[in-house]
Amino acid sequence: MRNGDSTTIDVSESSAIAKGKAPLIAVTKQETGGWKRGVAIFDFILRLGAIVAALAAASTMGTSGETLPFFTQFFQFQANYDDLPTFQFFVIAMAIVSGYLVLSLPFSIVSIVRPHAAAPRLLLLILDTVALTLNTSAGAAAASIVYLAHKGNPNTNWLAICQQFGGFCQKISGAVVASFVSVVVFIFLILLSALAIRQA
Amino acid sequence: MRNGDSTTIDVSESSAIAKGKAPLIAVTKQETGGWKRGVAIFDFILRLGAIVAALAAASTMGTSGETLPFFTQFFQFQANYDDLPTFQFFVIAMAIVSGYLVLSLPFSIVSIVRPHAAAPRLLLLILDTVALTLNTSAGAAAASIVYLAHKGNPNTNWLAICQQFGGFCQKISGAVVASFVSVVVFIFLILLSALAIRQA
Repeated sequence: MRNGDSTTIDVSESSAIAKGKAPLIAVTKQETGGWKRGVAIFDFILRLGAIVAALAAASTMGTSGETLPFFTQFFQFQANYDDLPTFQFFVIAMAIVSGYLVLSLPFSIVSIVRPHAAAPRLLLLILDTVALTLNTSAGAAAASIVYLAHKGNPNTNWLAICQQFGGFCQKISGAVVASFVSVVVFIFLILLSALAIRQA
Repeated sequence: MRNGDSTTIDVSESSAIAKGKAPLIAVTKQETGGWKRGVAIFDFILRLGAIVAALAAASTMGTSGETLPFFTQFFQFQANYDDLPTFQFFVIAMAIVSGYLVLSLPFSIVSIVRPHAAAPRLLLLILDTVALTLNTSAGAAAASIVYLAHKGNPNTNWLAICQQFGGFCQKISGAVVASFVSVVVFIFLILLSALAIRQA
């Protein structure tokens, strides 16, 4: 009934119209459905990529740690991610984001099966926004500490620790990069959801 | 034509149907328009609140600085926001977010005037998502440094500087809180846009 230039006479075909199965409209609906289904499949693939990135970030940070090969009688030099509260937050936040992404896969599949349903897309868009915020805050907080570990800050007398703990710094830098990859994927996911909701 | 339980005979009223002006549908459309207009007005008010929060965050951080009342012959003790690159990023990012919010007001007004137009809402939703990411990263990065300034970290020998520079620390903490207020407002803005786009 959307394309108003066709003059049709509908007599008591209520259920067929309600489901959009009237023969004249079928072609248009099918095309729109195909486009939306493609978006939904792309959404699913992007989610898989985001899971990989988020898990990589959490596990790289979680396993980072370095013990220097020399030690004194009373002290052994080692660096670990849980020496810094920001990195603990990073691991917890990225684990939550990974868990959310895994739990969101069924809703993404629902969008593939029923391309015209707006409710699952809307739910995903809202939850994606919250997850994006959590992911971004974890990544940015860790990035600022990683920067400090690399460069130090002479004004506050915070010395760079990356000269001593090179391997540790490489790992935490990699984890931050992985978290920002998943941030970018989240932005694309929200963009796709918004486009698909528009004419649901 | 949505409610399929009415049996109507439409003969060549193409333009009227296309614009949704058929008398039977008029009431429903009007109601939806009113609801959407309310959402658009709420969106506008939220944006004004976000501008205040973002400007407060940028200006509080930008004017933070403290010079201690004692000094030696060669050295004067002072702390300033541009001693730390993270705080410089914070000021720049929050200024950009404030500028974006001001520029987004006309589009919000367009949504109030034309509640059924989906294009401006979609544009705002996508740009809001990007601005949310920038805002969150600035806030989180600054928060991790503020935490460090308050508590220090014994494992890396980074000492807390807030014992000396109490006034400076209060100002930067306030700026971080203001930036998170605008993050929360952004999440609500995205949620509202998504709800309003759904049946545009």
